[in-house]
Amino acid sequence: MNVTIIGLGLIGGSIAIDLRKAGVATTLTGVDRITENSETAITLGLVDKVESLEQALPTADLVVLAIPVNALAQLLPSVLDSVSPQAVVIDAGSTKGLICRAVTGHSRRSQFVAAHPIAGTENSGPTAALTGLFRNKTNIICERDRSSEAALVTATRVFEALGLNTIYMEPEEHDKHVAYVSHLSHVSSFLLGQTVLDIEKDEKNIFALAGSGFASTVRLAKSSPAMWAPIFEQNLEYLSQALQEYIMHLQRFHYLLLKHDTQELHRIMSNANEIRRVLEGIELKQRTTATENVSSK
Amino acid sequence: MNVTIIGLGLIGGSIAIDLRKAGVATTLTGVDRITENSETAITLGLVDKVESLEQALPTADLVVLAIPVNALAQLLPSVLDSVSPQAVVIDAGSTKGLICRAVTGHSRRSQFVAAHPIAGTENSGPTAALTGLFRNKTNIICERDRSSEAALVTATRVFEALGLNTIYMEPEEHDKHVAYVSHLSHVSSFLLGQTVLDIEKDEKNIFALAGSGFASTVRLAKSSPAMWAPIFEQNLEYLSQALQEYIMHLQRFHYLLLKHDTQELHRIMSNANEIRRVLEGIELKQRTTATENVSSK
Repeated sequence: MNVTIIGLGLIGGSIAIDLRKAGVATTLTGVDRITENSETAITLGLVDKVESLEQALPTADLVVLAIPVNALAQLLPSVLDSVSPQAVVIDAGSTKGLICRAVTGHSRRSQFVAAHPIAGTENSGPTAALTGLFRNKTNIICERDRSSEAALVTATRVFEALGLNTIYMEPEEHDKHVAYVSHLSHVSSFLLGQTVLDIEKDEKNIFALAGSGFASTVRLAKSSPAMWAPIFEQNLEYLSQALQEYIMHLQRFHYLLLKHDTQELHRIMSNANEIRRVLEGIELKQRTTATENVSSK
Repeated sequence: MNVTIIGLGLIGGSIAIDLRKAGVATTLTGVDRITENSETAITLGLVDKVESLEQALPTADLVVLAIPVNALAQLLPSVLDSVSPQAVVIDAGSTKGLICRAVTGHSRRSQFVAAHPIAGTENSGPTAALTGLFRNKTNIICERDRSSEAALVTATRVFEALGLNTIYMEPEEHDKHVAYVSHLSHVSSFLLGQTVLDIEKDEKNIFALAGSGFASTVRLAKSSPAMWAPIFEQNLEYLSQALQEYIMHLQRFHYLLLKHDTQELHRIMSNANEIRRVLEGIELKQRTTATENVSSK
């Protein structure tokens, strides 16, 4: 299968590595508007060649869009215009509402599979690409009914090669949940980073006093603004709601602290401890899936 | 050296393990007001025996207080009253202002070394104790001048056995910095956990959609309320300031998001990316220290 990857960063690069490994891709063509990324992707062997969109699209059997969601929503209609009638187009965007709406009436909507493989690291660019990034992670397909069976068969082959477990959701449902369990985490981390950097201007005290807890909480503040600003903007409605609730909880906690209401502070923290069970559930699920994958081979 | 550990949880238990390993402790006596903790500590071999405060204090050469900071500030004066005139008392509390003030005029203040070994995990209790918890971590000693030289010599032997790198600070300076780099992280994590649990009541969507980013950001929400509520209360002034600044940054970010001010959102996130350099500095420092420790042996 001739595979064209648009966007040779962490996500696009990692998809390229594993599609080649799995034998799904026979030829890998890269497209990236940043020349340096293209050159690095060639040097690292992520793709066989780099082409312009005009060159790469007509001959592709599969096109994977792994670019920031603002560029993605803009580019997607013309990508569908330019591919062959048998080609399948998949995206990997972290928002789904605007992207799905961008091609709602498109004559080739059925060739497109709207997806969100939920994986990543705080690093970006082709040098951040790695094998196994998606193994045992969750993939969301939205508007499944609007993709053709043939497109879903190809997409499933791709997602299985990456080791993803696919579930199905509507775009609005997807966007609402990820606002809480992903986008809000990133905002809280970026601004925790900002708050601490503001006060600890000489940095020496951060070096000395920060423990592993701080490093863990602030890790996502290392994430790429070019990727995350468009996600926040596209998911404005749900993120705004999540952010408002988070700020409200912080303000109430602050108020209880000033009021010396130890009992209520305890209650809130004990309730938050419930997250332990949830996180153990996530780990357990990933281990179980890993075992299933092994035993089904 | 006869060592008495008051508080057989994560911190007290981990200190016990490494003081025995290093040969610093010949006899280890545990004190814990929770019978179950005492029994577990005996079963796990963390301490040789468990006694009451009245029994354990007069014969101890070294007393380590590793209990929640509210109990610590209350208990410390009477511990100093009950130990022998040659004994050394060390605490491991995460706040230092109130604890130091609790013994400011005490006739035996010089036998006490006020310390904060900055290490921990989100787990608690004697079963969470582990060897090497403090290796290459930072230890803060406050009011060094108020401890006798003899007490500092013993304390240094203890902290070196644990692998800690000690620096010196005044209590207020300590409390201000840890409000930002430790206590605020915990508050932000507890309330992120609460916000997400509130909205994702059926939990299934958290299991499916949460990635490693969420797990990392919310990890500290698993921490013990019994330990953290008193820390927040004792460090009210500085934590309140840090929390206010954090909320202000979140609100401004929210406002910019609603205003579609992409440029300013980008700028804030790029600035927060600076935390990468700080965190790499922390890791580098720990690796360098590790190498130094090895090469100096």
